[in-house]
Amino acid sequence: MNKPVTACILIIGNEVLSGRTQDVNLSYLATQLNELGIQVHEARVIPDIEQTIIDTLNEARAKFDYVFTTRGIGPTHDDITSSCVAKAFGLEFGHNPEAVAILKTHYKPEDLNEARLRMAQTPKGAILIENPISKAPGFQVENVFVLAGVPKIAQAMFENLQDRLKGGKPVKSLTVSTNLPEGIIADALGEVQKKFSDIDIGSYPYFKDGKLGVSLVLRGIDKNRVKSCDTTVKQMIETLGGSLIFTA
Amino acid sequence: MNKPVTACILIIGNEVLSGRTQDVNLSYLATQLNELGIQVHEARVIPDIEQTIIDTLNEARAKFDYVFTTRGIGPTHDDITSSCVAKAFGLEFGHNPEAVAILKTHYKPEDLNEARLRMAQTPKGAILIENPISKAPGFQVENVFVLAGVPKIAQAMFENLQDRLKGGKPVKSLTVSTNLPEGIIADALGEVQKKFSDIDIGSYPYFKDGKLGVSLVLRGIDKNRVKSCDTTVKQMIETLGGSLIFTA
Repeated sequence: MNKPVTACILIIGNEVLSGRTQDVNLSYLATQLNELGIQVHEARVIPDIEQTIIDTLNEARAKFDYVFTTRGIGPTHDDITSSCVAKAFGLEFGHNPEAVAILKTHYKPEDLNEARLRMAQTPKGAILIENPISKAPGFQVENVFVLAGVPKIAQAMFENLQDRLKGGKPVKSLTVSTNLPEGIIADALGEVQKKFSDIDIGSYPYFKDGKLGVSLVLRGIDKNRVKSCDTTVKQMIETLGGSLIFTA
Repeated sequence: MNKPVTACILIIGNEVLSGRTQDVNLSYLATQLNELGIQVHEARVIPDIEQTIIDTLNEARAKFDYVFTTRGIGPTHDDITSSCVAKAFGLEFGHNPEAVAILKTHYKPEDLNEARLRMAQTPKGAILIENPISKAPGFQVENVFVLAGVPKIAQAMFENLQDRLKGGKPVKSLTVSTNLPEGIIADALGEVQKKFSDIDIGSYPYFKDGKLGVSLVLRGIDKNRVKSCDTTVKQMIETLGGSLIFTA
């Protein structure tokens, strides 16, 4: 089997850590990357502290094939991601001529103040990532992709960088939900997992309308094996006297 | 100023990393901890891989005052958090008599199978955390608190452990939202930040109804200083010709 292609998502900013903002970029990026055959193996939410950002970037870019950052590339004093990327790579940091040109086509000369021009600063040699919404671009340095924090902008940037990514075989998944509690299925499910060692079987209980149910998620590279595992799991539920729950 | 009391949240499981499930435990825990005067300084989402969980636990419990984990304490084969906590601390792992007693009052003898009894396994000496919903308890070892993944259960467990936590002074925050884009306020806001070095001013743009706006979040220990900063920021917005946006 091929070695999986891996990614790490870094969510930068006190905003998410304070609980005030619910991050939604992780689930978007993870879903999209998975379709490209890239598996997110870690995500970290870290504060706006320069040394923490630099250290985390350096650890992550050495450990994973790809690193995606969100947040901290705007014009205000607390936007320090871009300069931290430069420091992590030991690169000069300054106005990127291509980025300046993009902002010049977007803003009237009198509106393109010093603060907005800061959004055109990148590490030297960075490759820009187009931002069709608010124009100020993201950028790529080697295997690190620097995206905005606003979800709509992060998503639009991601759509514009996909052709730079080279994934492995995408993970296929099927989900089986049942009214049986985990405690009833656990032993039989463990046996199914032993039989399908190439399939990652996750058991995720949920609590809805006052009742616990469980979703079994079957993931693997080989579609036919995932299907075969799905059939086996459904038979297991039937044998145990459970019902399948069909979710929209 | 007192040293802040810090926490790290570990969200364990392939489920969130695959993008299939949107985590909501982080924002809940961060908000609650903040009210207790405990600042979440990092969160990590890590896969169901034993060595990764053990290493991350050991790194986090040394670095932060408190560590909270969610997910992976159920009865199925993929629930490995509890045994990983034991290994991280070098403790024996086995049936906790108090936890077994709780399950015995909840399940009929014929329903308390081997799988369910696995939910009563903890590291030796762990202090249980009550679970009023599905009974199988969480537990505490030193500064590590092990919670369920299902949000309603995680929340109920958290409510039952709060009196074990000792926070510092809670961070007070005020939010000012305006229609002015970040590029217009950035320089003046930077000046306000210099004047209020004891206040953490975050600038968070958002995109709504086709327009960019910004929320300025002012955080600090001293309520009067936060209020004074709020007044200054509102004056700044007025001076720059902007409007305040009142959000519900």
